Amino acid sequence: MPAQPRSLTHDDAASAPRRGRPGYDRETLLAVCVEVFNRHGYDATSMGTLSSHLGISKSAIYHHVASKEEILEQALNRALDSLEEVFDRVQATDSRAVNKLEMIIQGSVRVLVDQMPYVTLLLRLRGNSPVELKALERRRQLTRMVENLVREAQEEGDVRTDISGKSAPRLMLGMVNSIVDWYQPDRSGTVDQLSDTAVKMIFAGLRAM
Amino acid sequence: MPAQPRSLTHDDAASAPRRGRPGYDRETLLAVCVEVFNRHGYDATSMGTLSSHLGISKSAIYHHVASKEEILEQALNRALDSLEEVFDRVQATDSRAVNKLEMIIQGSVRVLVDQMPYVTLLLRLRGNSPVELKALERRRQLTRMVENLVREAQEEGDVRTDISGKSAPRLMLGMVNSIVDWYQPDRSGTVDQLSDTAVKMIFAGLRAM
Repeated sequence: MPAQPRSLTHDDAASAPRRGRPGYDRETLLAVCVEVFNRHGYDATSMGTLSSHLGISKSAIYHHVASKEEILEQALNRALDSLEEVFDRVQATDSRAVNKLEMIIQGSVRVLVDQMPYVTLLLRLRGNSPVELKALERRRQLTRMVENLVREAQEEGDVRTDISGKSAPRLMLGMVNSIVDWYQPDRSGTVDQLSDTAVKMIFAGLRAM
Repeated sequence: MPAQPRSLTHDDAASAPRRGRPGYDRETLLAVCVEVFNRHGYDATSMGTLSSHLGISKSAIYHHVASKEEILEQALNRALDSLEEVFDRVQATDSRAVNKLEMIIQGSVRVLVDQMPYVTLLLRLRGNSPVELKALERRRQLTRMVENLVREAQEEGDVRTDISGKSAPRLMLGMVNSIVDWYQPDRSGTVDQLSDTAVKMIFAGLRAM
């Protein structure tokens, strides 16, 4: 891999001819960059790769962001903010733990579908930099919340106790997270059907009664 | 990324001083390379990167394999051969579809744990080359087998019909595949506990009766 062009400062960028006419708003630029990260991997994507996919010069990119890592950070924040919003909303309700878990599954499925490229990026992180490690720590907090809710639901008698309280939350989240790998809005049914199938499978199981 | 050293032929490698004394058997070399691919991403890993992680020259690597892609192919074959063996064994039994599904979950969990680095590599493929596309097609065949078994089990009255027959197989496999992202043998319990929790969750659900 070529070195990241971190040595190129804002001042350098300012002297480039296309500065001020980047041809993209920040939103579209972010979306395109995240697509490229997901296709080639964040580590394998250089600012040069982004530049050729965007069809604008590196300087034009530096009009919007200081570095490749800043793009990553913004994209990860988008995914994590949305997920945390779901968890906070659910935790603020006065429900039994098992119902909170159901609401978290439903809300997470929706975020995964709505923010698919951003969540995909989050889920594929390897933790190779401080930005990635920070995002992974925020993700871990959400996992811990689910672990605690499973334990609480077991104590309240709503969730079976003959399963591993360590594996069950991970398997549950793993099932939901897999959505970014295969869901196609036009072929896999609506988000509501998807969310309904996930909740039924996790809480009631596939076996016909 | 630097160009892959495909131009380096076996003859070039033969002239390198360490040829014939590579310091690794093929098995260990494969294991180390897969570790590096998983940590940095296959696309972002050059033969130079592999060389420095292995602590041997590129020529010594070429003693074992003709290219980075050959290493990938061998690693993917290992994962896919193991998974296909499970599926073939289960399909050869004279069981109801729902029991075949249970056996496939149990067998797949075991392969994922036993062959974790190889399956991890398989699951993170992006399909950027013919070798990757071929592996993804073999993976798709397995998914189709699970889809067919779910449909069969619904027809046999063993699996509920108020769920999406398209999403359920994907969610089920997604749950199992997530294991490579979080399972730690020393902290997450035994493979048997894991497999048992997955099967209970998928077929009976988490709700206490």
